[in-house]
Amino acid sequence: MLEKNNNILIIGAGLCGSLLALRLAQRDYNITLIEKRPDLRKTEQDAGRSINLALSDRGLRGLRLAGVEEKAKELCIPMLGRMIHDKEGNTFLSKYSGREDEYINSVSRPGLNMLLLDAVEAMPNVTIHFNLGCKTVDLEKGSATFKNYNTNEEVTFSGDVLLGTDGAGSMVRKSMFLHRKFLFSFSQEWLTHGYKEITIPATKDGGYRTDKSALHIWPRGEDMLIALPNLDGSFTVTLFLPYSNSDYCFDNLTTPEMVTEYFTKEYPDAVALMPNLVEEFFENPTGPLGTIKCAPWHSYGKTLILGDAAHAIVPFYGQGMNASFEDVVVFDEILDKHEGKADWNTIFSEYEKARKKDTDAIADLAVDNFHEMKEHTASPLFQAKRKLETAFEAQFPNKYYSKYSLVTFNEHITYYEALQRGRAQDKAILNLIADGKLPDTMALEEKLKLVIKETEDILHDDAVAFG
Amino acid sequence: MLEKNNNILIIGAGLCGSLLALRLAQRDYNITLIEKRPDLRKTEQDAGRSINLALSDRGLRGLRLAGVEEKAKELCIPMLGRMIHDKEGNTFLSKYSGREDEYINSVSRPGLNMLLLDAVEAMPNVTIHFNLGCKTVDLEKGSATFKNYNTNEEVTFSGDVLLGTDGAGSMVRKSMFLHRKFLFSFSQEWLTHGYKEITIPATKDGGYRTDKSALHIWPRGEDMLIALPNLDGSFTVTLFLPYSNSDYCFDNLTTPEMVTEYFTKEYPDAVALMPNLVEEFFENPTGPLGTIKCAPWHSYGKTLILGDAAHAIVPFYGQGMNASFEDVVVFDEILDKHEGKADWNTIFSEYEKARKKDTDAIADLAVDNFHEMKEHTASPLFQAKRKLETAFEAQFPNKYYSKYSLVTFNEHITYYEALQRGRAQDKAILNLIADGKLPDTMALEEKLKLVIKETEDILHDDAVAFG
Repeated sequence: MLEKNNNILIIGAGLCGSLLALRLAQRDYNITLIEKRPDLRKTEQDAGRSINLALSDRGLRGLRLAGVEEKAKELCIPMLGRMIHDKEGNTFLSKYSGREDEYINSVSRPGLNMLLLDAVEAMPNVTIHFNLGCKTVDLEKGSATFKNYNTNEEVTFSGDVLLGTDGAGSMVRKSMFLHRKFLFSFSQEWLTHGYKEITIPATKDGGYRTDKSALHIWPRGEDMLIALPNLDGSFTVTLFLPYSNSDYCFDNLTTPEMVTEYFTKEYPDAVALMPNLVEEFFENPTGPLGTIKCAPWHSYGKTLILGDAAHAIVPFYGQGMNASFEDVVVFDEILDKHEGKADWNTIFSEYEKARKKDTDAIADLAVDNFHEMKEHTASPLFQAKRKLETAFEAQFPNKYYSKYSLVTFNEHITYYEALQRGRAQDKAILNLIADGKLPDTMALEEKLKLVIKETEDILHDDAVAFG
Repeated sequence: MLEKNNNILIIGAGLCGSLLALRLAQRDYNITLIEKRPDLRKTEQDAGRSINLALSDRGLRGLRLAGVEEKAKELCIPMLGRMIHDKEGNTFLSKYSGREDEYINSVSRPGLNMLLLDAVEAMPNVTIHFNLGCKTVDLEKGSATFKNYNTNEEVTFSGDVLLGTDGAGSMVRKSMFLHRKFLFSFSQEWLTHGYKEITIPATKDGGYRTDKSALHIWPRGEDMLIALPNLDGSFTVTLFLPYSNSDYCFDNLTTPEMVTEYFTKEYPDAVALMPNLVEEFFENPTGPLGTIKCAPWHSYGKTLILGDAAHAIVPFYGQGMNASFEDVVVFDEILDKHEGKADWNTIFSEYEKARKKDTDAIADLAVDNFHEMKEHTASPLFQAKRKLETAFEAQFPNKYYSKYSLVTFNEHITYYEALQRGRAQDKAILNLIADGKLPDTMALEEKLKLVIKETEDILHDDAVAFG
């Protein structure tokens, strides 16, 4: 039975685990938080991981819940839109929304994680252990054994419940996969593309080499570069490229000459900003892009997985961290509703019931966006749609929200609702444009009426056919 | 390089592996076919496996290709439609198609497997080994080690290529999953329901206790019984039931009283036909219902998986065996096209490119049908749709094919095409009926025109939006 003073073992002190530990400590549980990496406040950063991330409304809501939103905002650099770079080096800004107050933020992953760890550590009812790698999990007992990477000793911890926030490679999830006593649905889906990070360093006087108030993007059909600003004046650039079967791909970019040729041809203005391009290309790892879904997320009323451990997604909607923070919000709401009235099994099961549909939706939206971002460059139809939507949002800010806005700036509707409505809207607009039903001569308000009507028709027809 | 006299190692001599071995032997390859079970021609049947299956046009096409269709038909019992049994024991026949020649067949799994093994064994260029369980696979070398269950010795076989037809629990696929040198996308999705087989025995004089020319079905919302006839006068009944969280489910049907109560209440006319119901309920295993998808299906130009090993599906479209036999047809077509001109890597890769979209489609169709079969009982809208479709097919046999007909009786269109068109048609009809656009006063031909137009509109709109 769940009690206020229950002992909760949390495995993984990344972004999700740290925020969860903080919030549950605030709710008076006794927390043991275990992390396999060294304390990142005392070591150099791990170069293999994205060093900045997009933080938007859903994520901020989670930070607000735990009272750390304002502090986190000090680490944020607002990005008002996508700065599109074409092959000739021309740029144009495509704003995220027609509404002034809707923007996303670039935030340092380690910076935010350190902030959260500091807040966690300030709580009297939390103990944090670093350098303990999880080796086995006993799902039925809510205990786990760890290897101490300093001493090589094995140590076992247990809690009244065990929460796994150990990321996309979760050992807790793996234990569920290998457990034979219940059916575990699981999927890992890899894109044909991988990613690699490169740096645009700050100028000598610590300034930015390009506009810091945008997410920069160099869309090239199959390939793409993006860049997000850091507080120190640098940008972190990410290359998305097919592994194989393409003129330029990770399989054939094997020499400095090939790398230079490729970047010079495709991203000439970016090359000028990346003095260490070739060295970094060969030093930095190539990462895969995968979606992980599974069910159930919990077992025996003893174990539950949250964040990337339960639902790793590709980065093309900038929602990975935001979805994980929203997990904490939803879990907190379930506790509000059931605490003192139900056992942990009920809490876990209600949480999964409330949340699974939404994390599936954002996973699918993120894969959609991978394909859409490539389309954008090629298709005048998609560009016409984007232009129309920006006009709608600027002129009718309370009547129209694009799919992107629904997902990113409307945390009071769920990802699932955003997916349903967003897809229907996209389909409506694309078809109305393609069928010539939105001529230039038509007033914008008339166009909006038509789009809304067509969207409702699509939602209605889908509901009749698919329930 | 692929040569006519290449040695091919096939792991798994079930339905797919046996047909594949037969066809490749006919194409002059040297075949080693290895099976972990004993030779089923010399042992009693394994009670845990479905003892009859639905065989329809796609499967028959595969058997025809290998010259064994006529022999297989001797094992077949035609089923012209679904015989629906309601709770009061009333029955009515819902034909599979409005066209006279469109029906499916009940066929014995072991009977058909034995027929195929006999045909394989008659080929001079095939060696079959039984009782060898695959333990490890070397994907790069095309070799595998096996445990001889008679002697407990380990033995290794290799081929120029290794084909895995070792079913839903495939060791070859598992080797790909655990292999770390390439990204392997994988999903296993379990339904909330399990299944259990029960027998309706023949009458004393070997006759059938109910109509043998139909697939019997007792739909009860969440639960369902089906029954397929066997040549010996018996029927194999399959119960589909939730594992848990239901008034009656596998978790709570734990006593003879509960089982009797449940069946008597829900399936009174069936209970009268199953004298050994309670014993069999507790003796026979409860099986899970899962879908498995993965990619890639091949590695290193040395290994390829086919059949259930590559794409296990739930049984609700009666297409599992048919899809596996169609794999052999498609693989054979790829060989026709490339043999002598390409290496095995190209063959495997072309095969996956040609086939994957279709096996994904039938997997999704089968899950859809699980939900639709439950809907049928509850929804007057779905019943009105089925009635209209049967009328279309009877009166305009060359102009209308239901989704079921497209999947089951039209082997010259792919599963993917059947899914696209079938779903659009269903959506069109359901919406036209729901919106009152097909009144009783309208001539059937007019209704058909409207349905076709609406279907084309839906396909067009989807193409514009989703490409």
